[in-house]
Amino acid sequence: MSENHFLHGFLNPKSVAFFGANNKGSSLAAILIMNLIKSNYDGNIFPIHLKLDSVMGYKAYKSIAEVPKIPELAIIVLSAKLVPQIFKECGEKGVKRIIVISGGFRELEGGRENTLTEDINHISEQFGIRFIGPNCLGVFNNWYGKKEENIAFNTSIWEHIKRDKFSIASQSGTLSSHIWFDPNSIDVGLSKSISVGNEANIDIVDCLEYFKDDKDTGVIGLYIEELKRGKKFLELATEITRKKPIIGIYVGGSEAGNRALGSHTGSLAGNANIYNAVFKETGIIQTDYVQEFLDIALILSRGILPKGNRLGIITNSGGPGAMAANNAEKKGLIVPELSESLQTQLMELLPSNASARNPVDCAFDMNLPYFYINIPEILMKSGEIDMIIQYGVVGFQDVLDDYLKNEKIAKHADFQHQPSEVMDSLAHNLLVPTMKNSEKYSIPILYVNPMSFTSPWSKRLRNNGALLFTLWDRPVNALAKVCEYVDYKYKKKIYS
Amino acid sequence: MSENHFLHGFLNPKSVAFFGANNKGSSLAAILIMNLIKSNYDGNIFPIHLKLDSVMGYKAYKSIAEVPKIPELAIIVLSAKLVPQIFKECGEKGVKRIIVISGGFRELEGGRENTLTEDINHISEQFGIRFIGPNCLGVFNNWYGKKEENIAFNTSIWEHIKRDKFSIASQSGTLSSHIWFDPNSIDVGLSKSISVGNEANIDIVDCLEYFKDDKDTGVIGLYIEELKRGKKFLELATEITRKKPIIGIYVGGSEAGNRALGSHTGSLAGNANIYNAVFKETGIIQTDYVQEFLDIALILSRGILPKGNRLGIITNSGGPGAMAANNAEKKGLIVPELSESLQTQLMELLPSNASARNPVDCAFDMNLPYFYINIPEILMKSGEIDMIIQYGVVGFQDVLDDYLKNEKIAKHADFQHQPSEVMDSLAHNLLVPTMKNSEKYSIPILYVNPMSFTSPWSKRLRNNGALLFTLWDRPVNALAKVCEYVDYKYKKKIYS
Repeated sequence: MSENHFLHGFLNPKSVAFFGANNKGSSLAAILIMNLIKSNYDGNIFPIHLKLDSVMGYKAYKSIAEVPKIPELAIIVLSAKLVPQIFKECGEKGVKRIIVISGGFRELEGGRENTLTEDINHISEQFGIRFIGPNCLGVFNNWYGKKEENIAFNTSIWEHIKRDKFSIASQSGTLSSHIWFDPNSIDVGLSKSISVGNEANIDIVDCLEYFKDDKDTGVIGLYIEELKRGKKFLELATEITRKKPIIGIYVGGSEAGNRALGSHTGSLAGNANIYNAVFKETGIIQTDYVQEFLDIALILSRGILPKGNRLGIITNSGGPGAMAANNAEKKGLIVPELSESLQTQLMELLPSNASARNPVDCAFDMNLPYFYINIPEILMKSGEIDMIIQYGVVGFQDVLDDYLKNEKIAKHADFQHQPSEVMDSLAHNLLVPTMKNSEKYSIPILYVNPMSFTSPWSKRLRNNGALLFTLWDRPVNALAKVCEYVDYKYKKKIYS
Repeated sequence: MSENHFLHGFLNPKSVAFFGANNKGSSLAAILIMNLIKSNYDGNIFPIHLKLDSVMGYKAYKSIAEVPKIPELAIIVLSAKLVPQIFKECGEKGVKRIIVISGGFRELEGGRENTLTEDINHISEQFGIRFIGPNCLGVFNNWYGKKEENIAFNTSIWEHIKRDKFSIASQSGTLSSHIWFDPNSIDVGLSKSISVGNEANIDIVDCLEYFKDDKDTGVIGLYIEELKRGKKFLELATEITRKKPIIGIYVGGSEAGNRALGSHTGSLAGNANIYNAVFKETGIIQTDYVQEFLDIALILSRGILPKGNRLGIITNSGGPGAMAANNAEKKGLIVPELSESLQTQLMELLPSNASARNPVDCAFDMNLPYFYINIPEILMKSGEIDMIIQYGVVGFQDVLDDYLKNEKIAKHADFQHQPSEVMDSLAHNLLVPTMKNSEKYSIPILYVNPMSFTSPWSKRLRNNGALLFTLWDRPVNALAKVCEYVDYKYKKKIYS
């Protein structure tokens, strides 16, 4: 399938020639070759350097001609004006795939744009070369080493990212890589990421074509400033969203947005209304926020889609429940009052000062298995809601441990630190049944713990599959967007 | 001033009687008394307990009558039906201030609401008692120990929070305390926080009155479900916003929101349109998001208000600049194209592939002093913009240090780890001039570093006063809200 697509070779090369890398940390080229090393790439690396004998421990060559085999990919991080000559040398060597990181292909020269783009286009045609860029940040393939999760092909992303099925094609290098700079705060797993840059040869439509048939891609993220092949994009996106959701950021339409783009990739962003219509028509989930882009990807990557837009809210505090409900309705979700029989069923597990109307306000003193397992299960089984947000999955033991750090309290306290194994097992026992029910009933459940995302209990919840947030704004907003996609599928009668 | 307000005694008591606390960690009462201890409260603590001889190391008394002096404040965390009797005993002892944490004052009893609220209202009138609650989460005063920052009066907030001038009055305990659960991720400093609960005796209007004259309160945050004294609120808010900004969350108006509130504090939320109009008329900055509530508070606490709504964007990457510009215009901000002379001036410091039109796209290879000091200074001096967002204040040394953890890279790399002092001094030198300029020109500057908020460089920036965010969505949204307030002040001609 996708193995036959020409982009496959860009993401799975067995050998790479690297133009521009050195042993210093300060250059982009050095950073990219260090990423290759850090992600345990096991193919051949051939640095090309006029002066150095070796780069990061790899034997360096004065030119591509001297390399003992034909590299399956060349990566160029050199000044733009040197690039055409490198293309020629690569072509003569027989290299068929190039990634041009370098920018500067649209600078003014004597009052008009330089012709460097035309130059490399011409040479690539001559030699049958395909290339990504220029002005891009490389590619990332988290499935390069299929069997070993610690191996990736990475000329782009700076950190080790969990392997999963979200793939990105982006006209901004930052959106394809730097937004993953803090992997401890991001639970979205990545499949592939392609920074397309100026799209002189390969564009976002090529990426869509590739992702469409890629079995390791289940959710697609796009950052778009302009579409060069609008008609083809529309056809492809329409076909893809039947099976794989697409999340799209479109930047343009505003005066300053267009101005920013002019200097960024030189594109003309065009009319926002047209793009908005294309997104809507094709069922692309549109967002203006990078955080929301990641949040939606997280929910969709789980593969559990709600069947409608009715939200159940479970909380142990009134305020967050009320705020979530309020925001949900403003965003087009329904927070239905639960039926009397369902309320009766819930109240059997709740203290008398609780409320089961929805939000289901469990009040503060909550039986943990009821809170984590039974209440969500009753809601999921009921058929009265399509998704759940649960506020208050607080790490009580973390709170207590924090108090025990105080000498005076530790001396008098009638409670103690619980061993890690006990807490691990508690989290497992509380979460796993609900994760299973979530899948069984196709009802996503999103958790909120106001403690740190990397606090011990939060980590335990995440390790057991919880979709976790620290506050209740983002999960509501992201679910509302997911529901737009669900609604689209229903209207197009393509719900499966 | 505020010392004469009756609420002053609730926040600065020299002795506290505590009903309901024990030595176990699992009860709310225990947690509250541990907070008193942890925040180094230096007044007298008198636990009242029928059976225990001591609570957390403090001698316990069987009843308030046995306490050797008259406590300036009593805190009650007992079952609701016991509370009237405790009120009576407190009244007889001469206690004049009570905080009732306990909920359950609006439960149904024989088909109708119980009369516990009326009971305690009656007793408090009889004895001249004022009380906060019931159904609240206590109070917090970060300025209790004026001279020593590690001393606070804390029966509410669970962690040590930086001392500053943001004060909260909230009809939700979560909004007054639990949102501060992860203090390492929050740079907003707190002055006071009051959880008003059901407002049986003291309401949010009382808090406003107190905050109005409190010299340690510069910015006020409100979480409102209903207003019992609407007219008085309107008068007070109008008066206060001339000098101190108020950020308000109003929950209600949606069907589910109202339903949530009905079971929460028993209030009738009323008509959203009326509340929205009140907020607008009084210049309260309204938000539906708790994260935005904190973000706006962070910006306002700095005390540097923009003079208009023109945003300058400095970036070293095109995508974030374009997204920020796009979002800013959608939110009503202006991202003006800079004048030709200003562009010329900026381009002298920028590489040739940069753009100075606004967004000022500095491209990737940036001279640090130019990026952190000179470019912002030129923009601030220009008179062409009123505030700045700067993307890309990345911790390059943090990135390099991360690579050095890889053995293979460490062996060959031609760069090294920099000592902490060097980096401390670099951050100081890069930030301080801009912080001064920000104040001098009254131009807020917000920074974005996509690396972890607690990464070494991010911490250094924050320690030097940077208003820092990890992505570019939130700073734009928060600034847009701040500008609504600025606009209000101009329209009311109360800009100072």
